[in-house]
Amino acid sequence: MTGIIADKNLAPQGKASYDWARAHMQIFNSIMEKYQSSKPLRGIKLAFCLHITKETSVLVMSAQKLGAKIAICSANPLSTQDDIAAFLSSKNILTYAWRGESDSEYRECIMKVLQFGPNIVTDDGGDMHNTIFQVPSLKILGGTEETTSGLARLRILHSSGKLNYPVVAVNDASTKHLFDNRYGTGQSAIDGLLRATGLLLAGKHVIVCGYGWVGKGIASRARGMGAIVSVTEVDPLRAMEASMDGYTVSKLSICAGYADFIITCTGQKHVISISEIIKMKSGVILANAGHFDTEIDIHSLHSKDKFPIQVRPYVEQFTIQRKLVYLISRGRVLNLVGSEGSPPEVMSLSFANQLLSIIYIAKNYSKMLPGIYCVPKEIDNYVAEAALRGMNIEIDKLSKMQRRYIGRQ
Amino acid sequence: MTGIIADKNLAPQGKASYDWARAHMQIFNSIMEKYQSSKPLRGIKLAFCLHITKETSVLVMSAQKLGAKIAICSANPLSTQDDIAAFLSSKNILTYAWRGESDSEYRECIMKVLQFGPNIVTDDGGDMHNTIFQVPSLKILGGTEETTSGLARLRILHSSGKLNYPVVAVNDASTKHLFDNRYGTGQSAIDGLLRATGLLLAGKHVIVCGYGWVGKGIASRARGMGAIVSVTEVDPLRAMEASMDGYTVSKLSICAGYADFIITCTGQKHVISISEIIKMKSGVILANAGHFDTEIDIHSLHSKDKFPIQVRPYVEQFTIQRKLVYLISRGRVLNLVGSEGSPPEVMSLSFANQLLSIIYIAKNYSKMLPGIYCVPKEIDNYVAEAALRGMNIEIDKLSKMQRRYIGRQ
Amino acid sequence: MTGIIADKNLAPQGKASYDWARAHMQIFNSIMEKYQSSKPLRGIKLAFCLHITKETSVLVMSAQKLGAKIAICSANPLSTQDDIAAFLSSKNILTYAWRGESDSEYRECIMKVLQFGPNIVTDDGGDMHNTIFQVPSLKILGGTEETTSGLARLRILHSSGKLNYPVVAVNDASTKHLFDNRYGTGQSAIDGLLRATGLLLAGKHVIVCGYGWVGKGIASRARGMGAIVSVTEVDPLRAMEASMDGYTVSKLSICAGYADFIITCTGQKHVISISEIIKMKSGVILANAGHFDTEIDIHSLHSKDKFPIQVRPYVEQFTIQRKLVYLISRGRVLNLVGSEGSPPEVMSLSFANQLLSIIYIAKNYSKMLPGIYCVPKEIDNYVAEAALRGMNIEIDKLSKMQRRYIGRQ
Amino acid sequence: MTGIIADKNLAPQGKASYDWARAHMQIFNSIMEKYQSSKPLRGIKLAFCLHITKETSVLVMSAQKLGAKIAICSANPLSTQDDIAAFLSSKNILTYAWRGESDSEYRECIMKVLQFGPNIVTDDGGDMHNTIFQVPSLKILGGTEETTSGLARLRILHSSGKLNYPVVAVNDASTKHLFDNRYGTGQSAIDGLLRATGLLLAGKHVIVCGYGWVGKGIASRARGMGAIVSVTEVDPLRAMEASMDGYTVSKLSICAGYADFIITCTGQKHVISISEIIKMKSGVILANAGHFDTEIDIHSLHSKDKFPIQVRPYVEQFTIQRKLVYLISRGRVLNLVGSEGSPPEVMSLSFANQLLSIIYIAKNYSKMLPGIYCVPKEIDNYVAEAALRGMNIEIDKLSKMQRRYIGRQ
Repeated sequence: MTGIIADKNLAPQGKASYDWARAHMQIFNSIMEKYQSSKPLRGIKLAFCLHITKETSVLVMSAQKLGAKIAICSANPLSTQDDIAAFLSSKNILTYAWRGESDSEYRECIMKVLQFGPNIVTDDGGDMHNTIFQVPSLKILGGTEETTSGLARLRILHSSGKLNYPVVAVNDASTKHLFDNRYGTGQSAIDGLLRATGLLLAGKHVIVCGYGWVGKGIASRARGMGAIVSVTEVDPLRAMEASMDGYTVSKLSICAGYADFIITCTGQKHVISISEIIKMKSGVILANAGHFDTEIDIHSLHSKDKFPIQVRPYVEQFTIQRKLVYLISRGRVLNLVGSEGSPPEVMSLSFANQLLSIIYIAKNYSKMLPGIYCVPKEIDNYVAEAALRGMNIEIDKLSKMQRRYIGRQ
Repeated sequence: MTGIIADKNLAPQGKASYDWARAHMQIFNSIMEKYQSSKPLRGIKLAFCLHITKETSVLVMSAQKLGAKIAICSANPLSTQDDIAAFLSSKNILTYAWRGESDSEYRECIMKVLQFGPNIVTDDGGDMHNTIFQVPSLKILGGTEETTSGLARLRILHSSGKLNYPVVAVNDASTKHLFDNRYGTGQSAIDGLLRATGLLLAGKHVIVCGYGWVGKGIASRARGMGAIVSVTEVDPLRAMEASMDGYTVSKLSICAGYADFIITCTGQKHVISISEIIKMKSGVILANAGHFDTEIDIHSLHSKDKFPIQVRPYVEQFTIQRKLVYLISRGRVLNLVGSEGSPPEVMSLSFANQLLSIIYIAKNYSKMLPGIYCVPKEIDNYVAEAALRGMNIEIDKLSKMQRRYIGRQ
Repeated sequence: MTGIIADKNLAPQGKASYDWARAHMQIFNSIMEKYQSSKPLRGIKLAFCLHITKETSVLVMSAQKLGAKIAICSANPLSTQDDIAAFLSSKNILTYAWRGESDSEYRECIMKVLQFGPNIVTDDGGDMHNTIFQVPSLKILGGTEETTSGLARLRILHSSGKLNYPVVAVNDASTKHLFDNRYGTGQSAIDGLLRATGLLLAGKHVIVCGYGWVGKGIASRARGMGAIVSVTEVDPLRAMEASMDGYTVSKLSICAGYADFIITCTGQKHVISISEIIKMKSGVILANAGHFDTEIDIHSLHSKDKFPIQVRPYVEQFTIQRKLVYLISRGRVLNLVGSEGSPPEVMSLSFANQLLSIIYIAKNYSKMLPGIYCVPKEIDNYVAEAALRGMNIEIDKLSKMQRRYIGRQ
Repeated sequence: MTGIIADKNLAPQGKASYDWARAHMQIFNSIMEKYQSSKPLRGIKLAFCLHITKETSVLVMSAQKLGAKIAICSANPLSTQDDIAAFLSSKNILTYAWRGESDSEYRECIMKVLQFGPNIVTDDGGDMHNTIFQVPSLKILGGTEETTSGLARLRILHSSGKLNYPVVAVNDASTKHLFDNRYGTGQSAIDGLLRATGLLLAGKHVIVCGYGWVGKGIASRARGMGAIVSVTEVDPLRAMEASMDGYTVSKLSICAGYADFIITCTGQKHVISISEIIKMKSGVILANAGHFDTEIDIHSLHSKDKFPIQVRPYVEQFTIQRKLVYLISRGRVLNLVGSEGSPPEVMSLSFANQLLSIIYIAKNYSKMLPGIYCVPKEIDNYVAEAALRGMNIEIDKLSKMQRRYIGRQ
């Protein structure tokens, strides 16, 4: 096994990236001010299984400053930024991660982190939580989980009686999902589209499939760039909302005919089927901003044109019945294409929830039964308040009279 | 007691207003198509205690077409449109309402409606529900309630054991509160401001106090007219949302100094206190879009200038420490000032919920215990779908494969 | 001849309206500060032929404060606000105007003003300028003209050798046409639409015919209220601009089919022909925001339905081939329908140009040959700067170095 | 001298880029359809001195298809895309250009192109026009010029009697400057900002210095991404326009204190001076979208911190009085930073003007005296109409009656 310790020469570059992210995650200033002197993680051995990015390094370094000893591996064999891994390693973080791990190396890295003997584990997707119960010697006080899909797996673990420590569901904090999806993905999907295609959005017909938080964000930002936006939905309430927000709402089969760009964000499968694609105008550009690459029927695209041309780094051109169809990033999530995903300001919200949940567990584990816990409301509020301070925003407070008035109503 | 039967000569004018509203409440087409032949309200005696407006007349006439016998009085002594009352009266609706009832006349009208002996009652604010339990002879099968405040009173009735029939809480349907507050009030508050002042909004500093659904609607529409909008909040999550929606967020004491217009929609008391008003720039215009006239401290305004000047029909000018302060509509809800409140398209959503809830009660009352019920989810969905049809919007449907895919997730 | 002196009892109400307008035309503060002590209009006899509105009274009273003696009549027999006329009359302004003059009374009023023996005349539409040359005894030093159409008539007068004094074309100042049309009409057309119909704009299909300054303003404000806006044009450059501003652009015959509202502002005749109207969906609402009532083919509408119904004060309903067509305000300019036209902030720009042009003539007439003059650039700039001061806006100034840098380029 | 013929292996990649651009420059379809059969450039030897980009290759290949023989060099030693150069070379275009020419190589390339003996020359910046008059043997029929600055130099040449052929000023066509600056630069400046920083725009304070076409575009797109935008100006008319478009307008010294991003686009020098920078909040990000890198006082920045840190590829961090100041792309034009400049749809407008002006010269040179000519109005219109066709937009046409109506006005 090679590569556990990343190329040390990359550390200074990793440090610069860390500094840049840190400067834009000012919530951590508040948290450090509040906790740094009391070192609430002293004595805690912390395991992280996360995407190794500049924002993650801010979380890790902050936990270290609060007293924790830390080992980290990657939540995905392909997502590690090696300069960040090198930087963490140079800071006495046990770092088992590099870009391009094989599947067995990936699992080995998780095992290495567990051999470190952690008390608290922070996971993204559930691979670490699912490994832990196979290592009976581990004494885990508690854990956290970043994603919807990790939580789904944890619920199965729990219902089968295998989860033997409490886990805080960071994903479900308001300060995470209300902001990350709408504002983070809204911007970064447009960013990904511009980087991939280099085309003008002003005056273009953009179809957004799905009007959940992500769809709302993308539609709003596409219109902000001058596009003429239509929305498709299967839910009548959301369809009405889209219409009253000023978007044309119609069936995909109707609006697809004049689309320049179609972006899916439904969580569904084959939202764009091959029978729709065939009716589109030549030159249409298809992209997916949903989590999985199932939203566009890519398999059928390939069966119609077995030799697509890579016309730009993230753009494939299919020729079907003499018409051109462009696919961005093989249908994988648009806002990570050649760009950097959600901006640090947005990641700082979910990682602040992570760090505060870890502190919460370190303090309260003895009172917590195995199971899945909401992020305590006071953490969610604290994050919102600290985020506002980081944005230099002061807000009003209710007076005593006003508190009474509301209570009376 | 005079005036129970309104001036008959007004009926044709009321008919024209009814026609105009009816033409823009197309959900009722769907409902009529579905139910008109089966007459589900045959045999039902229906009591309405509602604001007597053109939109209300659409609800009433539709219920009549479905077989009900109807008596109606006003939910407010000042809100009746006499031409509508005359029109309803001309159509064999027992109508006990005119604009400018005295308090005792108002109560007498409610009693008259109850003497009609209704089975089902539809109330707005709770005055009728609260009268009913004082009339033991009444046999009420069930009722509905339009507002938040009416529901609050019903909950008190229920917890004290006095509510002896089931009530459907129409206010809480998604198709009511998600649309009425944001899009209806958003537009009509701006409309009210323009009618009251006749001033330009472009380039003006507008402060919106409160970023709930109403605040979101007003802020968005004010920006849509070219205003420079700031938001004040006491809730950090909403404050962050406002900021990321592109509004300046600050304490009222900071932004009030440069405000041209300040609009409150918080549900709070004395959001604009006299100590803030004193620091504002001369010429500031204060308006309230919240339900109650408590949001601006009007009492203190009057104590500072005992002789305000009525400079326009809905604008009073106060002179305080040599500066001018303008108050719109004595601080009462802006979107009803000299305008017509929520547009018929929005009212049609809540009144469709009303009518379908009445039909639901007529059919299911025997299975319903006394208590407060949500609008059944299928009614909410039906309203959304019928509203879309009325807007000529067709949306996609999940395929069998897609239903399975979601189930599996 | 009656009514020359309006009902004195209306004067206090006129005073309140004047005060309201004055408070929102702060440019006049700057002008008064600069000129009030030197009284540059002392000895001048000034004739005004303008719409007698609250904004006009601000212009008139300001000219009086600068030393002028003044007589005024209305530029239209139907547009006088009687309370304003009474107020002016109470302030020693010779006022010959009331709402509802007959044609002969209208002409008589103009003659009365000319009998006053003015030196300088300010006209709106050219009726006074065209009367003057029939009264050889008049010694006019110079004049101004507010409108495009008045200027067209003056150019004819001039080319036929009949104009014997210099006239300043106030209409053509940048500070007039760049703001009045786009921001003033943009807002007040939407205002007129809401007052006339009381309908929701969010989610509605609004077609704007013409994408000049007025069309740009209306399209932007309609979108700001949540409408889905399409634009029609005959000019390809403007069509491209509309498209890149995010509006659907198409032929009227295509978009009219799904329109909820169609608003014309093209300056053309029969933009909406009866052959188009027949193809529209039932319930379409037609309105005109252009100067003349020629843009919609009203004559043909009336020939198709000889008995339209007045469903609301400004809404006529035509039934054509079983479909309903609504016409706002008989096709006359929408932003004056039951509303107050351009807001005072916008009128203050053109009236400041008027007053400064009058002062300019009073000072320079001896050097000016008969003919039509642009508003001097320094007046246009002064108005812009004073307007900014009135809006409490300070802007940057070029440094010496920067002036040199630009000169060098 | 090496490198005149670029690495042939890059040609296929250049071909893919050319295809992508060609697919989004559909105006050229119209031009080819109209002219390809008549070959109006047969017998013409054409010299291009342009940035060698994918869009330029579309212009060059189109001119070749119309019959021209072509030689090309780059208008800038650093801007050549080598794959495009290789592609052109593979298509029998004499190509003298590679990325990273020395100054003497740059001049040598221009000479090589002139040795080809062109009849018509197309220049960007004026270096080729200024070289030509030093080569008396050349017989130039006419030329075109793409930029403002090139035209300024040509006017000097002309006034000193040295310009001995007619030149068409492509820069001044409406279809160029109205669209390129506002929509092209508006989008690509935001694109550049996102690529350089990876930060969130929603909720950030963005200051745009200058409200010309570029400033209008950037302000609108920044707001479209959720930023809170302020504008600074030195021109009062533009300042008022910005205010009524809903932006806060103030002096830079006031708004700079709370800025997250400041973007200059004024054409001025030292708009952001060091004395302003010192007062900004720590972390401010400075960027320039103007043509020259003079708008930010970079020299003083470097004198205050001699060792700035390169924290990201296009971001330098300066530490001044303990505060951090970030500079994007050394103050050079933001929309070319690590991105691709104006999108092909926008470039197609100016290059269509180029190609049609070349055809115009080829046909009319014998009637044209030396001097500088506007793009003929019919070319400008043709480009607008062809662009609309390329966007699948059909617009209305005036009827005979309507043409008469306008004529009468």
